Amino acid sequence: MAALESTVDMYDLRMSEGVRPLYEKVKAFIADEVAPMSEEFFRLGENRTDRWSYAPGQLELLEAVKDKAKENGLWNFFLPDAETGEGLSNLDYAYIAIELGKNPLASESMNCAAPDTGNMEVLERVGTEAQKREWLDPLLRGEIRSAYAMTEPDVASSDAKNVACQAVRDGDEWVINGEKYYISGAGDPRCKIMITMVQTSPDGPPHQRQSQILVPIDAPGVEILGPMHVFGKDDAPHGHMHIKFTDVRVPYENVLLGEGRGFEISQVRLGPGRIHHCMRSIGQAEKALELMVSRGMSRDAFGKPLAKLGGNTEMIAKARIEIESMRRMVLTAAKAMDTLGNAEARVWVSAVKAMVPIRVCEIIDQAIQMHGATGVSQWTPLADMYASQRTLRLADGPDEVHWMVVGRKEVGDGEDKAKEYDPKVAFLTNTSAVKDGAFSGPA
Amino acid sequence: MAALESTVDMYDLRMSEGVRPLYEKVKAFIADEVAPMSEEFFRLGENRTDRWSYAPGQLELLEAVKDKAKENGLWNFFLPDAETGEGLSNLDYAYIAIELGKNPLASESMNCAAPDTGNMEVLERVGTEAQKREWLDPLLRGEIRSAYAMTEPDVASSDAKNVACQAVRDGDEWVINGEKYYISGAGDPRCKIMITMVQTSPDGPPHQRQSQILVPIDAPGVEILGPMHVFGKDDAPHGHMHIKFTDVRVPYENVLLGEGRGFEISQVRLGPGRIHHCMRSIGQAEKALELMVSRGMSRDAFGKPLAKLGGNTEMIAKARIEIESMRRMVLTAAKAMDTLGNAEARVWVSAVKAMVPIRVCEIIDQAIQMHGATGVSQWTPLADMYASQRTLRLADGPDEVHWMVVGRKEVGDGEDKAKEYDPKVAFLTNTSAVKDGAFSGPA
Amino acid sequence: MAALESTVDMYDLRMSEGVRPLYEKVKAFIADEVAPMSEEFFRLGENRTDRWSYAPGQLELLEAVKDKAKENGLWNFFLPDAETGEGLSNLDYAYIAIELGKNPLASESMNCAAPDTGNMEVLERVGTEAQKREWLDPLLRGEIRSAYAMTEPDVASSDAKNVACQAVRDGDEWVINGEKYYISGAGDPRCKIMITMVQTSPDGPPHQRQSQILVPIDAPGVEILGPMHVFGKDDAPHGHMHIKFTDVRVPYENVLLGEGRGFEISQVRLGPGRIHHCMRSIGQAEKALELMVSRGMSRDAFGKPLAKLGGNTEMIAKARIEIESMRRMVLTAAKAMDTLGNAEARVWVSAVKAMVPIRVCEIIDQAIQMHGATGVSQWTPLADMYASQRTLRLADGPDEVHWMVVGRKEVGDGEDKAKEYDPKVAFLTNTSAVKDGAFSGPA
Amino acid sequence: MAALESTVDMYDLRMSEGVRPLYEKVKAFIADEVAPMSEEFFRLGENRTDRWSYAPGQLELLEAVKDKAKENGLWNFFLPDAETGEGLSNLDYAYIAIELGKNPLASESMNCAAPDTGNMEVLERVGTEAQKREWLDPLLRGEIRSAYAMTEPDVASSDAKNVACQAVRDGDEWVINGEKYYISGAGDPRCKIMITMVQTSPDGPPHQRQSQILVPIDAPGVEILGPMHVFGKDDAPHGHMHIKFTDVRVPYENVLLGEGRGFEISQVRLGPGRIHHCMRSIGQAEKALELMVSRGMSRDAFGKPLAKLGGNTEMIAKARIEIESMRRMVLTAAKAMDTLGNAEARVWVSAVKAMVPIRVCEIIDQAIQMHGATGVSQWTPLADMYASQRTLRLADGPDEVHWMVVGRKEVGDGEDKAKEYDPKVAFLTNTSAVKDGAFSGPA
Repeated sequence: MAALESTVDMYDLRMSEGVRPLYEKVKAFIADEVAPMSEEFFRLGENRTDRWSYAPGQLELLEAVKDKAKENGLWNFFLPDAETGEGLSNLDYAYIAIELGKNPLASESMNCAAPDTGNMEVLERVGTEAQKREWLDPLLRGEIRSAYAMTEPDVASSDAKNVACQAVRDGDEWVINGEKYYISGAGDPRCKIMITMVQTSPDGPPHQRQSQILVPIDAPGVEILGPMHVFGKDDAPHGHMHIKFTDVRVPYENVLLGEGRGFEISQVRLGPGRIHHCMRSIGQAEKALELMVSRGMSRDAFGKPLAKLGGNTEMIAKARIEIESMRRMVLTAAKAMDTLGNAEARVWVSAVKAMVPIRVCEIIDQAIQMHGATGVSQWTPLADMYASQRTLRLADGPDEVHWMVVGRKEVGDGEDKAKEYDPKVAFLTNTSAVKDGAFSGPA
Repeated sequence: MAALESTVDMYDLRMSEGVRPLYEKVKAFIADEVAPMSEEFFRLGENRTDRWSYAPGQLELLEAVKDKAKENGLWNFFLPDAETGEGLSNLDYAYIAIELGKNPLASESMNCAAPDTGNMEVLERVGTEAQKREWLDPLLRGEIRSAYAMTEPDVASSDAKNVACQAVRDGDEWVINGEKYYISGAGDPRCKIMITMVQTSPDGPPHQRQSQILVPIDAPGVEILGPMHVFGKDDAPHGHMHIKFTDVRVPYENVLLGEGRGFEISQVRLGPGRIHHCMRSIGQAEKALELMVSRGMSRDAFGKPLAKLGGNTEMIAKARIEIESMRRMVLTAAKAMDTLGNAEARVWVSAVKAMVPIRVCEIIDQAIQMHGATGVSQWTPLADMYASQRTLRLADGPDEVHWMVVGRKEVGDGEDKAKEYDPKVAFLTNTSAVKDGAFSGPA
Repeated sequence: MAALESTVDMYDLRMSEGVRPLYEKVKAFIADEVAPMSEEFFRLGENRTDRWSYAPGQLELLEAVKDKAKENGLWNFFLPDAETGEGLSNLDYAYIAIELGKNPLASESMNCAAPDTGNMEVLERVGTEAQKREWLDPLLRGEIRSAYAMTEPDVASSDAKNVACQAVRDGDEWVINGEKYYISGAGDPRCKIMITMVQTSPDGPPHQRQSQILVPIDAPGVEILGPMHVFGKDDAPHGHMHIKFTDVRVPYENVLLGEGRGFEISQVRLGPGRIHHCMRSIGQAEKALELMVSRGMSRDAFGKPLAKLGGNTEMIAKARIEIESMRRMVLTAAKAMDTLGNAEARVWVSAVKAMVPIRVCEIIDQAIQMHGATGVSQWTPLADMYASQRTLRLADGPDEVHWMVVGRKEVGDGEDKAKEYDPKVAFLTNTSAVKDGAFSGPA
Repeated sequence: MAALESTVDMYDLRMSEGVRPLYEKVKAFIADEVAPMSEEFFRLGENRTDRWSYAPGQLELLEAVKDKAKENGLWNFFLPDAETGEGLSNLDYAYIAIELGKNPLASESMNCAAPDTGNMEVLERVGTEAQKREWLDPLLRGEIRSAYAMTEPDVASSDAKNVACQAVRDGDEWVINGEKYYISGAGDPRCKIMITMVQTSPDGPPHQRQSQILVPIDAPGVEILGPMHVFGKDDAPHGHMHIKFTDVRVPYENVLLGEGRGFEISQVRLGPGRIHHCMRSIGQAEKALELMVSRGMSRDAFGKPLAKLGGNTEMIAKARIEIESMRRMVLTAAKAMDTLGNAEARVWVSAVKAMVPIRVCEIIDQAIQMHGATGVSQWTPLADMYASQRTLRLADGPDEVHWMVVGRKEVGDGEDKAKEYDPKVAFLTNTSAVKDGAFSGPA
């Protein structure tokens, strides 16, 4: 067949029978516990005096729900096939993550929020016992939060070889100097640790120049310059921080997996992370379509509900078709990770990363249009949702990089055929190639 | 979940284990038997003197391959769950039909060509014993061919209530008067019978005005006015004929299922028919992408293979992503027909009918562009493929009608929510709806 | 010719010879005076304690530049053919407004900022001497600012007949009750007066139900409920305010033009207003493209400047082509207002209002993508520019209403031809209509 | 201002006053003389026995109209500023060519048909007296026709350096060997001469390797292998021929302008040729929109005229907006050739060549959709129009080459700015760049 698949099983996209009760519990938990807590949580947050801390009572509310989640076994199930958590397959988790995508606090309530998920996954796979004890355990318990410091302001991050923040070994320590930005979650007072991508061997082979090092956020020399904005928002106190490292010293053994293996770790982390984002994006698209239809049916102009005016019904139909297409593609990519492994599944992951956020942006944009000015206001979540999905087109590799991954695979697959390609010979007899083919009037 | 689905099983898109050997046999048969025969068949056809007949030797070649197919059990497997044929599910047939879509004679070689497939299905489901003996049996044996006469030149066929060709009962006979066009296959000398949609009760309820009647093509008063073209081609001798009915008399019992039930039969027929077309369209898209890549890798300009110039790699990637999306949507629609029944599956069928041909057109168009002038020439099948897929956007209901079906379902689903919709209340607390949502930098 | 034009002169899109010196002076003034002042102005603004007032020194800076503008005759030239101001034609003003669109304080520095421009134009055309003395004169001198209160939160404003805010006559006074939102500029402490669209004759003919009334913003009963956001921003202190009117009393003579003539006034105001927005949008698009190219040429990935990677050069080309197309369309619409009058030019105005903001959004979006995460950050103006242009697709009538205006005109023009339309007769002889037409290989 | 312009005059797009009477005469001549002749001409053509000749009476009809055109001074006006013909500017000719684009025989009737126009222009500009006498004079009189042989089947013609057909000097003669295809007009029995692009110095500097040589079509060794198709059509007897040159000998002085100057001549020819095509494309788009509206208003479905169903009115509006945009861009490109010269106008020419045919294709495609199956049939000219415009996207440089020309210019313009580009410094003060900018509610 074609470039992007290989096994029969990849067409079995069903949730496991055994996971269905969990899935139903998650949905109920979001509706019954997370949703009412969220309302209260954000209401309290509006009154806080310091944007970069939580208001009194906010965290208590959140922790209470987290405790309840833990008690009910709704905890840490993002980690595929791991001993910790539910050991969900990527496919099963996909169904759940789509639901998590519909409420802003659902992921954290069940300890499945980025970037902790990726950090925990990396620590669980490649951490030493000591590293796990110090950082993974409190993360798994939801006691601390973490950040992942990769993107830099001065280089094109789409080409990972460009990483410029330097770590130089000095005896038993690393000395780190450089700048990172858009370090999400580093604004949260609960954030204690950053996995930091650094250049350790400037002259090594391109893919062995980088290492990933654990850097406590309170290490001397770590300076938070300020928050980066996303369409004017700072997302405080979570934040997307701009951070400067000046002679930051951490123990040599804080390096993960080994010197020069930073790239390798990225591969472990980025596959699932990208898929998780895309899963939640489907949830966002569902929410946007729901708002689009609700608004369209509840407001009239020129004697009709908006949803039935002009091209609006067609627009709604196209959104539904897109969502169902994306859902199946994301499920397939999750299945690919389950059955082919992260490395082989890479093209699938790029396919959905390039496909999903750009289309979800369009659907949210159409929902905005259906709402009129209210669509860009604080009365609907649509503007925030748009900003978030738009930014996702830049995070974890911009669309362009992912198209390149998919395109290169396809072109590679075609190279052999190209050698024997001669249009004049090959298709001479094909002149009527579709003679009785697709068009024959009604079948 | 949402508008377009309802069962867990709809996510099991695997081919049945038992069907895989058949699928492999079909692929081998196309490569080993149909492909070489096709070359010879079309070469012979070029020299025929009468466009509307076959050249000496053409039909013999085809019949020999059909016999071989029959011997090998590669015959009539389009008919889902039927006693005749393989009794394939729609899902299993989908995989096979995608392969059939890649060669212009593959469908007919295995007696799976439109419009015979739809006609056989209707006869098998609603025909009387006598009707089956006279028309279904020779069709199932591949001895005759058939046509389906629905579309009319003077009314908007997208609204089926517009059918104007009239049949009036006169004793034991129907007397038919009217005009039909784009009657595909009616040009073939082997075509013996037309299922004809007629108006029988102009004043009845809108969906009971029509009947479907069996009309032998040699009945007195049936006059073939000429071929309709498709982008300048007449597709002779198959043809898409313009036919006039003047006082055509057929026995009263030639009505299928019963007077006034024409609409009902359409529902039986159109579901699978539309899906079959879309399945074959996937095959066409695969072929177009293969040509796009082969050409792009075999020709250089400005020092690079075309496939790597400018936005071409990205275009190739997008085509692959689209194809995989469409494949999964078509498989899902087939599964919907298997598990939900034709009526319930209707929205799914409309979803793929509205989605697939328009996108396949784009992919073929891009393949043309990659070929330069050769792309519109007779040296590649691309121009024919384009014409065929473009026309499919008009056949069996134009895109617009199918968007309306999907959109109306979605809007209907949203009606209740609309009643309680109040943006100011509902989303006040949602201001930061995506706070820790989709964007958090790398996961 | 066709739907949208009628005179030879509409193809003369040159700036008047006499206006060129003014145009050059405006460009120089923006570069030499406004740009440096803006930097300082916004720097000061960052430190203000009350978002809804100006920081010490801000207004002084602005006023100094305004004085200089006034001295140099760079003042009030938005008003076409008026005794006040330069009496510029719409076409000449278009060239200037494109430049104003490139700096956020340029318009106000020369007293050409919305919504004052529209309000001044209305007062100048339909105000009484007393109204002019009280409100127009200080506006023309740039001493106060103003707002225009039309949009309401509870109805679809795209259909202007829906206006629900009520004014009831009580003796010599109007008593106003209702709610308005997105009242831009009403947050500015200098804003003194609002032109308010109200319903005065609920039972009158649909287009005579509304009146426009002058309401001082400090009138008792006017309550500013809070700011409406635009993609998370409140644009303080300008603001887009949510305002409640409770038994607000103003003198009867505050009605503009006369009771029931609110609709009529809208026509006066909205034509030029929409065009002014679109002119500035062209400036925004130019700025976005400039940033796109500068960034694309200053950053490398995979061994090349971004601007030359993949489809980026093509994207840049398309942006340039779009900008030049839009520029000519906007100039034509301005010319239409000059030569055909506001009423006749209406279809042209709708054409550019439907065309420009949506395309400028796309260009800004592409500039964001070229910048990576920096594109959505506070380090570039792109996210703000996007939010602003996106909102423009909703303000002054959403895209959909303007397409409807253009489409209805076109369809109307075609109605007569439709009557004699018979494809079978009309085109029979046209089968080879393009025989030697557009394609003949190289010319 | 920006990349694509430089003079005030380029905004004066009016037709010359003096040309208006001619323009009106052309429109009247098409309606009164060409249109009725065309019907008869094609009707006669349907009955011819040899596709590659004309039926008795066809040429007589055409010649009679040509004579009438000549008598009325409607002759050869394509040649800008030349002593022959009307000496029309490119701008004035643009208005006329848009009209010519609406009828398939209009151009030839007034001796303005491609590829003769380009050939005559080249001969007029660079031909010797002898060459002019032998070939230009009978062409200007409309007695013979001609072809331009550039494209080759075995190389990517988008890169002109690839030309492989060889001419080797042998004493007083050239000996030519190679293959050309899509040689439009070479099938016409009246075609006597081909301007042939050949490689004469394989090792010279890339742009001096080619020469253009006059080759009589009846020269020994010129073999017409057959017609190339365009979407299944051979456009006989005009034809797009596949031609083989085997030891074809022509006198040395048949080289145009001089050995190694083939490239230079292309520049002379291609500018106007591309613009002429795009002008006629506007005419095609107008015709398609007219048909779209007429059909849409003359046929009902679901209780409404098609033109008012769903998104159709919006689609019609967008088509009108596109047409007016393209018209102004084409007029501007023509003006650029008039005021800047062919070389400087090159970016403008590429801009319209990349913009127009692709959009006209979309408009025709939408007109097809509005017609249902009739849209792809021989009953409307739409399928032919589509094929023609689609092919134009490949002729005279594919879209991609023209985007590259425009993009490279824009990127080049931006190179200097890129050097000083620093987002962190440059835009810090721009955070609120659109503060009072484009969005401020109604103006």
